[in-house]
Amino acid sequence: MIDSRRPLPPDATATVGEGKTPSRRDFIRRAALTAIAAPAAASIISGCDDDRKKSASSGQPVQSVASSPASPKSQIPAEHGGTLPTPAAGSVSATADAMDAMHEKGIKAFPARTAGKGGQLLPPRMEKGVKVFEVTARKIQWETEPGKMVEAWAYNDQVPGPQIRVREGDRVRVILHNQLPESTVIHFHGVEVPNDQDGVPFITQPPVKPGQSYSYEFTAPNPGSHMYHSHHNSAKQVGLGLLGAFIIEPKQKRAIENVDVDYVLILNDGMHGYTFNGKGFPATEPIVAKLGQKVRIRFMNEGMMIHPMHLHGMHMTVIDKDGWPQPAPWRCDTLNVAPGERWDVIVNCNNPGVWAFHCHILPHAESDHGMFGMVTALIVNK
Amino acid sequence: MIDSRRPLPPDATATVGEGKTPSRRDFIRRAALTAIAAPAAASIISGCDDDRKKSASSGQPVQSVASSPASPKSQIPAEHGGTLPTPAAGSVSATADAMDAMHEKGIKAFPARTAGKGGQLLPPRMEKGVKVFEVTARKIQWETEPGKMVEAWAYNDQVPGPQIRVREGDRVRVILHNQLPESTVIHFHGVEVPNDQDGVPFITQPPVKPGQSYSYEFTAPNPGSHMYHSHHNSAKQVGLGLLGAFIIEPKQKRAIENVDVDYVLILNDGMHGYTFNGKGFPATEPIVAKLGQKVRIRFMNEGMMIHPMHLHGMHMTVIDKDGWPQPAPWRCDTLNVAPGERWDVIVNCNNPGVWAFHCHILPHAESDHGMFGMVTALIVNK
Amino acid sequence: MIDSRRPLPPDATATVGEGKTPSRRDFIRRAALTAIAAPAAASIISGCDDDRKKSASSGQPVQSVASSPASPKSQIPAEHGGTLPTPAAGSVSATADAMDAMHEKGIKAFPARTAGKGGQLLPPRMEKGVKVFEVTARKIQWETEPGKMVEAWAYNDQVPGPQIRVREGDRVRVILHNQLPESTVIHFHGVEVPNDQDGVPFITQPPVKPGQSYSYEFTAPNPGSHMYHSHHNSAKQVGLGLLGAFIIEPKQKRAIENVDVDYVLILNDGMHGYTFNGKGFPATEPIVAKLGQKVRIRFMNEGMMIHPMHLHGMHMTVIDKDGWPQPAPWRCDTLNVAPGERWDVIVNCNNPGVWAFHCHILPHAESDHGMFGMVTALIVNK
Repeated sequence: MIDSRRPLPPDATATVGEGKTPSRRDFIRRAALTAIAAPAAASIISGCDDDRKKSASSGQPVQSVASSPASPKSQIPAEHGGTLPTPAAGSVSATADAMDAMHEKGIKAFPARTAGKGGQLLPPRMEKGVKVFEVTARKIQWETEPGKMVEAWAYNDQVPGPQIRVREGDRVRVILHNQLPESTVIHFHGVEVPNDQDGVPFITQPPVKPGQSYSYEFTAPNPGSHMYHSHHNSAKQVGLGLLGAFIIEPKQKRAIENVDVDYVLILNDGMHGYTFNGKGFPATEPIVAKLGQKVRIRFMNEGMMIHPMHLHGMHMTVIDKDGWPQPAPWRCDTLNVAPGERWDVIVNCNNPGVWAFHCHILPHAESDHGMFGMVTALIVNK
Repeated sequence: MIDSRRPLPPDATATVGEGKTPSRRDFIRRAALTAIAAPAAASIISGCDDDRKKSASSGQPVQSVASSPASPKSQIPAEHGGTLPTPAAGSVSATADAMDAMHEKGIKAFPARTAGKGGQLLPPRMEKGVKVFEVTARKIQWETEPGKMVEAWAYNDQVPGPQIRVREGDRVRVILHNQLPESTVIHFHGVEVPNDQDGVPFITQPPVKPGQSYSYEFTAPNPGSHMYHSHHNSAKQVGLGLLGAFIIEPKQKRAIENVDVDYVLILNDGMHGYTFNGKGFPATEPIVAKLGQKVRIRFMNEGMMIHPMHLHGMHMTVIDKDGWPQPAPWRCDTLNVAPGERWDVIVNCNNPGVWAFHCHILPHAESDHGMFGMVTALIVNK
Repeated sequence: MIDSRRPLPPDATATVGEGKTPSRRDFIRRAALTAIAAPAAASIISGCDDDRKKSASSGQPVQSVASSPASPKSQIPAEHGGTLPTPAAGSVSATADAMDAMHEKGIKAFPARTAGKGGQLLPPRMEKGVKVFEVTARKIQWETEPGKMVEAWAYNDQVPGPQIRVREGDRVRVILHNQLPESTVIHFHGVEVPNDQDGVPFITQPPVKPGQSYSYEFTAPNPGSHMYHSHHNSAKQVGLGLLGAFIIEPKQKRAIENVDVDYVLILNDGMHGYTFNGKGFPATEPIVAKLGQKVRIRFMNEGMMIHPMHLHGMHMTVIDKDGWPQPAPWRCDTLNVAPGERWDVIVNCNNPGVWAFHCHILPHAESDHGMFGMVTALIVNK
């Protein structure tokens, strides 16, 4: 749970006379007030403590100046500065408080517990030198956020399906068991398999009927961040959850790939709402690292919309597109991820704190009831 | 027509006992069954034959294992394993079969014949050293898929309009005849013409009225993949088909431009539905190459939405953006193409077979009735 | 006001016999007609004059040829060539004229005067070595195009809010005064501030209540084109106007950054319609440069949709993404800008004239009533 500093009581801003520039002493006095008002931060934001001290003169409520040159026409409303006429101001204040309370509730619930965790690493069994993975597709109930149950079509009862991770050159077998009421198939998106392993019904194979099983086999080719998903009635089947990460580790790692945390982040926007790895905020999972560590994030978009992913506080160094190295790494803080794309980035965790990390199409991330959907955090602990 | 392998009869999967891991012998026996069940593949997929042999132990239906460790909670439904209670299972099976039949019908119809072919190369006539192209804009009926007639506003009765292809430095004249019920103009999108040839009504020229003609003339400047289209009431006029490729070949080709197939792929999503070169699947045109050949694809988006184009089985090497070389080529399998953008890619056709090639916004490519709209194939024949 | 050349009278195209290729003399005669028909161009298009002369043989109405080889099936309609049957042709012509008049009206009104100008540079006041900026958030009425008043939530009564521009390493204080009926905060998007200055309610600070003020302070870190905006109920608050440019100039400029014009272009698509810097066409502001000058455009998307920005006549050289230099500059004429992204480009103004510059999602830029929304011009004067 994030237990953030409580907002100051309204009178805390009413103690400085109108028109007076707040002095450094005022700041410090209020900082002390804040420190008292705020219960000890939970571990999730403990990394911020020192910074808070360093910038003691900032990050604090100050009193409005009566007429600033930057805003010559602005009228300081009557309710400002401690002399609030009760009804109107009270109603504005009550409305704002009610909205803020909803926002706070969401943040405090993060990361919220829900049943089921998607994308768990699937250990293969070895059969005569072949790494064998079995996935069973069936209809389940899936909890996307606390109390919100949706119908999902899932591999091994997970949304996203279990993460399959092999090494370049491995012989790989994936056995699909179809327990759905529809036919299905698996397409290995981005993996350059022989044509008859490509999973496109009536082009490369017959559809796998309800009750049937089907086996795919190939030698893991081009390394990188790939996906597996249904390619039959796919707008529905992928939208309902028949998708997962398929990662092929390279025989030869590049120096830039030596990271402390390797995180897969699958975006979706289908029937389950706006989700990261099958969950909506506040049930999304924070990414956690220590100061100085390197995090690799493998973005994968399995939805129907673009999602420009924005990280606060630190930039991302883009290294791979669809598993292929970019000619040179490049930096950004907002990365546009389109359906079917994979982008690999490295974050050098050099800025401690809890950093919001979300889709920047704002209606995918926040409503007047607070944050929801495509929001999580990158937490850099000291 | 693609005539793909038929799905196995349901009892083919019922011959192995529950809980038994399918043996290699089982795979091979079924492979033989499949080979019998499948009529000889039509030429469109003949390239896949050898691969199919090589991976004879895979790509085949297998029987579900009763309880796999990867799916501990899964309940094998009663209808699995040959002991199907007639009514429920029959109904699931019938529903799945009915859906699959619709999907199969679409695939088998590909590439479906329709009247009219867009983007045909327009040979110029020479007039005193000037390459003269004439395009007549008028209202026509256009068949986007078999039996689906739409109103189109077309250049020379084609959607997209005819391909205009010149060489850097050529003197070019394009004469527009307006037989539409509205005024129109031509804008040469991406071509750095003198301002008065830019085709923007009331800024660079008067609109060309119904019944009038208008002549554009310039020396072909910056080479690359460009477009020409209406710039008057353009949301409607371009949406209805007043668009085409305008390609300026460079005086000096780069080595990477030496290709065997040079293919223009214009995306649209207006009043004609989701189309590639004016047609929706199964009436889209496959791109055909021989194993080892290089294909250049010139993506052009004339629609109102982004379309992340995904190629199966092989990657694309991106060389140009809007006709300008990228600083270094880079690779991907899913390329996000936004309205007005052109992207040139090279595909090294090193993986034989029929490869699905589609927009990865899945509702642009597939419904529960099967594939439609923005789907085609890259066929690599051996 | 743009006062463009008037369309030719209909009979001007009827003077050449059917089937005759228009001669050079015909072109020149018509060019003269045009020159007479067109009142002197206002200064906004004066740059085009010489080009118009140079290409006197083109850019002119010509008469349709009766049957061109390029359009074998086309029927030249009876109304073409001066022998128009009165009723039908009259009605088509009247409809086209009425539409064209609406289009012309919009163009002639550009750039239309409206109350209020967004994004004005905000001069800081110095306090003991700190650059202090004050912004007051409050509800205002904002004129997006002539006569269209919308409710805006604005910083210092501007949409976008005032431009804040500092230098890498500056100590910066931003004081927010909240006169809105809701709580709010400021997030410095892209700026790598200490966590407690990041402006995310309940994670890094309490929300700033109606009537309260709040102070942010940090040392300007990573240079580049960044933004500041609300991060509380942001889909609404940013959509209503609580946003602005936050630019950090580098200590050390790169050679490519030496430009003549430095222009910020903020895209939005919320409750105010499709806007550039808070205004819709024809109230958008043209970018003006002299031939040979270099213009830097800093694209910032504060909306909810992607906007592929297309410049006519010249290309853009992309140098920065989100304030970070690209590994190597690259060129394009259509740049896809997603929400939250910033892209910096350089335009070498080597092509004189008035160049349309717009989002290429056409329904964001034009309707049957003419251009609107996301349209402006880059004017290169000689």
